[in-house]
Amino acid sequence: MPIRLSQLFLRTLRDNPADAEVASHQLLVRAGYIRRSAPGIYSWLPLGLKVLGKVEQIVREEMAAIGAQEVHFPALLPKEPYEATGRWEDYGDNIFRVADRKVPKDEAGKPEEFNYLLAPTHEEAFTLLVKDLYTSYKDLPVSLYQIQTKYRDEARPRAGLLRGREFIMKDSYSFCLSEEDQQATYDAHRAAYVRIFERLGLPVVPVNAVSGAMGGSASEEFLFPCAIGEDTFVESEGGYRANVEAVTTPAPEPIDHSGLPAAEVHPTPGTDTIETLVQAANENHPRQDRPWTAADTLKNVVVAVVMPDGERRVAVIGVPGDRDVDLKRVEASIGEHLGAAGEVAVEAAVEADLKKNPGLVRGYIGPGLSLDTPVLGEEGTTGLTYLVDPRVVSGSSWITGANEHDKHVFGLVAGRDFGWDGVIEAVAVRDGAPSPDGSGPLRTRRGIELGHIFHLGTKYAEALGLKVLDENGKLSTVTMGSYGLGVTRVLAAIAEDNNDERGLIWPGAVAPADVHLVATGKGEEIYEAAEKLAADLEAQGLTVIYDDRPKVSPGVKFGDAELVGVPTIVVVGRGLKDGTVEVKDRRSGEAQEVALEAAVSTVAERAANLK
Amino acid sequence: MPIRLSQLFLRTLRDNPADAEVASHQLLVRAGYIRRSAPGIYSWLPLGLKVLGKVEQIVREEMAAIGAQEVHFPALLPKEPYEATGRWEDYGDNIFRVADRKVPKDEAGKPEEFNYLLAPTHEEAFTLLVKDLYTSYKDLPVSLYQIQTKYRDEARPRAGLLRGREFIMKDSYSFCLSEEDQQATYDAHRAAYVRIFERLGLPVVPVNAVSGAMGGSASEEFLFPCAIGEDTFVESEGGYRANVEAVTTPAPEPIDHSGLPAAEVHPTPGTDTIETLVQAANENHPRQDRPWTAADTLKNVVVAVVMPDGERRVAVIGVPGDRDVDLKRVEASIGEHLGAAGEVAVEAAVEADLKKNPGLVRGYIGPGLSLDTPVLGEEGTTGLTYLVDPRVVSGSSWITGANEHDKHVFGLVAGRDFGWDGVIEAVAVRDGAPSPDGSGPLRTRRGIELGHIFHLGTKYAEALGLKVLDENGKLSTVTMGSYGLGVTRVLAAIAEDNNDERGLIWPGAVAPADVHLVATGKGEEIYEAAEKLAADLEAQGLTVIYDDRPKVSPGVKFGDAELVGVPTIVVVGRGLKDGTVEVKDRRSGEAQEVALEAAVSTVAERAANLK
Repeated sequence: MPIRLSQLFLRTLRDNPADAEVASHQLLVRAGYIRRSAPGIYSWLPLGLKVLGKVEQIVREEMAAIGAQEVHFPALLPKEPYEATGRWEDYGDNIFRVADRKVPKDEAGKPEEFNYLLAPTHEEAFTLLVKDLYTSYKDLPVSLYQIQTKYRDEARPRAGLLRGREFIMKDSYSFCLSEEDQQATYDAHRAAYVRIFERLGLPVVPVNAVSGAMGGSASEEFLFPCAIGEDTFVESEGGYRANVEAVTTPAPEPIDHSGLPAAEVHPTPGTDTIETLVQAANENHPRQDRPWTAADTLKNVVVAVVMPDGERRVAVIGVPGDRDVDLKRVEASIGEHLGAAGEVAVEAAVEADLKKNPGLVRGYIGPGLSLDTPVLGEEGTTGLTYLVDPRVVSGSSWITGANEHDKHVFGLVAGRDFGWDGVIEAVAVRDGAPSPDGSGPLRTRRGIELGHIFHLGTKYAEALGLKVLDENGKLSTVTMGSYGLGVTRVLAAIAEDNNDERGLIWPGAVAPADVHLVATGKGEEIYEAAEKLAADLEAQGLTVIYDDRPKVSPGVKFGDAELVGVPTIVVVGRGLKDGTVEVKDRRSGEAQEVALEAAVSTVAERAANLK
Repeated sequence: MPIRLSQLFLRTLRDNPADAEVASHQLLVRAGYIRRSAPGIYSWLPLGLKVLGKVEQIVREEMAAIGAQEVHFPALLPKEPYEATGRWEDYGDNIFRVADRKVPKDEAGKPEEFNYLLAPTHEEAFTLLVKDLYTSYKDLPVSLYQIQTKYRDEARPRAGLLRGREFIMKDSYSFCLSEEDQQATYDAHRAAYVRIFERLGLPVVPVNAVSGAMGGSASEEFLFPCAIGEDTFVESEGGYRANVEAVTTPAPEPIDHSGLPAAEVHPTPGTDTIETLVQAANENHPRQDRPWTAADTLKNVVVAVVMPDGERRVAVIGVPGDRDVDLKRVEASIGEHLGAAGEVAVEAAVEADLKKNPGLVRGYIGPGLSLDTPVLGEEGTTGLTYLVDPRVVSGSSWITGANEHDKHVFGLVAGRDFGWDGVIEAVAVRDGAPSPDGSGPLRTRRGIELGHIFHLGTKYAEALGLKVLDENGKLSTVTMGSYGLGVTRVLAAIAEDNNDERGLIWPGAVAPADVHLVATGKGEEIYEAAEKLAADLEAQGLTVIYDDRPKVSPGVKFGDAELVGVPTIVVVGRGLKDGTVEVKDRRSGEAQEVALEAAVSTVAERAANLK
């Protein structure tokens, strides 16, 4: 049966919703696919459900093709397994916690604790299920997946379905005993993801998501390149692609510093910026061979790190003065230097952070004047962790703060005069920087993360005791892989990639119908012909949205058809008296008059080509 | 592709799980359809998901056939609409409440309040969505539904999927402006439910769920008759069917009491039970015409009512002494007498309840000796609400407690000597009692509620302001209907109705596959023939579970096939050398040898007949 617009639960909107800033969000709401229920939480209208079902079906088919089996876990899960893996704490405010009726209440009627959560991802549940059912190497490898509603209490839900608090994910996990099997399963998922995005018509690129000069395949993200994306990645002409957080800086060789002069402290009044410092250095302490530049200075940037348990810690990062610190890159790796168990959040330090650390002289911060009297660093007088950029190599010489107001030290040599607690990829990657694998200069782009595949190792299997008997009858811990794909986010990405000023333009593979049939004009014969055409199209296996609304103007009908975005629009109207209908391509806008008798075959051919 | 048992994520269990008491729960776990994740919360394994998908598909088809349109709401919803309808409070401990990160935390780190819930049902969300999109009578009627995961924090989750805390429901709502349209939509849903249960092969009966001698159609439950059911219903030979809570007692006509003698108090030492009271009455104060029976006494039963807000109230119910009070029937209607806004819970009163009401003399409780000096009743000295059975009709004469230890009053006349606050259906319905519509004696049966349809009226539309412009351009409040169907519970009911001591026996319409193909015996030719047969069956559009496990004994394979419960089992084994395979009916156990070449057509014919 065709979907009749006289009956369909749909109300198209002329104006963009006030809270919608990106095209996919605006159009999915305006064209009646979704409605907002709460921040980051959406209801699905009939048309939206149809598209969602098609996206899910493609994912299911490709998962089945690689032998992954579908299961389905609860969204509401008990706390204990998440405590065992440490994630109950690590997630901090990012998960929704729940207390059931068994939890005792305090005098104010509040539960004494929370004992359930709405799962953000299901590693624990998958691990426990395999542990529950399987005991032998003969059972492995196995890949399981589900398509499920996930919950994440995002601090800033945004862009409609692109970053929600309730969203649908496909998450697979693989369970293997050997590294070879794990690599093979990883490769199979990678190939399946490539096929899924091809079928969806999305120009998604896999990018390395962990450090390592040659990239490796330990973790890859599937990014949809898009100006409104939250992720930044780099690519080279030679084919290197990495999330900007995973880009490594080729570190210079250490420099022999045996012939370098001793460092000297100079008064540098009023030079609390790199610019004023370089200017003062060139005026008062000029170099012989060339002018000083910002790259000769060591800028020590104070950052605040919110640890998984909420503790706020201060750390200092030393980078060349001509570089900017990229807080997202810092966030990706600073946790391990501070011994954080989970994700951390990094912000620029604020007044209060500096006040708590009076050893930091704003504008004149430096690592200290000698290895015996460090200021920065866990062994220094401030006690603050001090991390440096890979360019701060042993033997490199710097102008940097002398930890006294209006004073800098010149010729302070890394490794000779000061040390550090660790090396960190902290500076923003610049367009044109060399690719770590030598494949040419890097270009930075924005993207939306639609999938992420990685070797999970034994973290969950160990924490939850997933072992099976190996071929020698010994208990062996299982190795896992994790493969996520954001289903609702994919749908939004498709909408983001396929629209124009008039509305959505769905690819044939996921369109809510094959054809949008519009009857316009007066006269019963038009509606009779359209009705028959709708039936004939459906009889051919095509799905039809039929605008049968009797008292709606042609302009409104055409506008709705273009907004809704079915790829083929057929108009039964003026031409009918000459025995023709109009077949229109939503994307190009091209229209052709087709004999009524040929309409079904014309549309069927178009639909087949679009899939 | 066939489902290969060598690959399928399945582990059948020989023993029943310790916590499983009913057959469906035991077998769904043992046969590898579901696994418990937490009390009342289950994970779905591959076979379970297949059956669930088939049940959902049948529901979808029948909903589409009556023009209901599918939407999908979030499970996590904001509190405000539920506050507006009063359900945030009414649900008490029965819902899971959630606080998001925006809620301020107290010094112990606990949220100051909860601002979201996991929806137990979605009346509010549906109402608001229609309000959001629709404004005119022209848009109505409309029926919307979803198939969705619901949450209810059951005090006693039990019987596997039959009473869970996370479960799947299909819930529809209709929106109409006229009573006629609402009735038509109700009737359409009723017919759809009948078809759904027919297609599922479930012998479900619709029963009246609200009082009213002729039943009416204001509310009907669809019950699956089953000994382990939690609901009790009655039926007559003439076709009357009602939930036991909805059965009404034909009230006797009032009696003219003008000629009756005055009541007399007599000492009745040691008669704090009906039995001892009747014996003492016959010994010391015999009736002339016949002996006293328990039916001559008025038993006053003290009950405790837990109100929606948690308050515990005490009430007294007067019933003939030969009758038992059915607390579930009391629970169904006492709330309205006490002015409760939501569901109440009723329990037998305990010691503490009596202590708080010293006016109640245990074993000798009565309404008081005259209308001027009432003891029971809101105007009485106890102040306790006093409700009576419909048989306590004006002019009826009773032996009852005199509110003094060891004393009863004889000949106390209803309406002349005592009054009451209301009439309540409180006593247990007996087999053989007359049907309220005169269609013969009633028989009580147990059942599982699988569906519930009812006219919802304007409660939600009024609370949330859902009005549309009517034909005269005036704002008019929309009338709603509500139609629930427990999808996971239906699946469990099918399992409960279709099993034997060897395992499950799925009806063809929902079986995880059409045929379970078992290869047994040694020799490659057997596996080759089975492999080819599996492919041929699939080529015919049949779905196949293929037991290709090479080192598993025939006994284990047959046992697994019978446990898993696919309706047709085909064995490729010994007969192959004579060119035959065995085709077995799982339900009857009947087997026939069929020529290998005829196997596909035989199975296809069976499968077609089973659907």
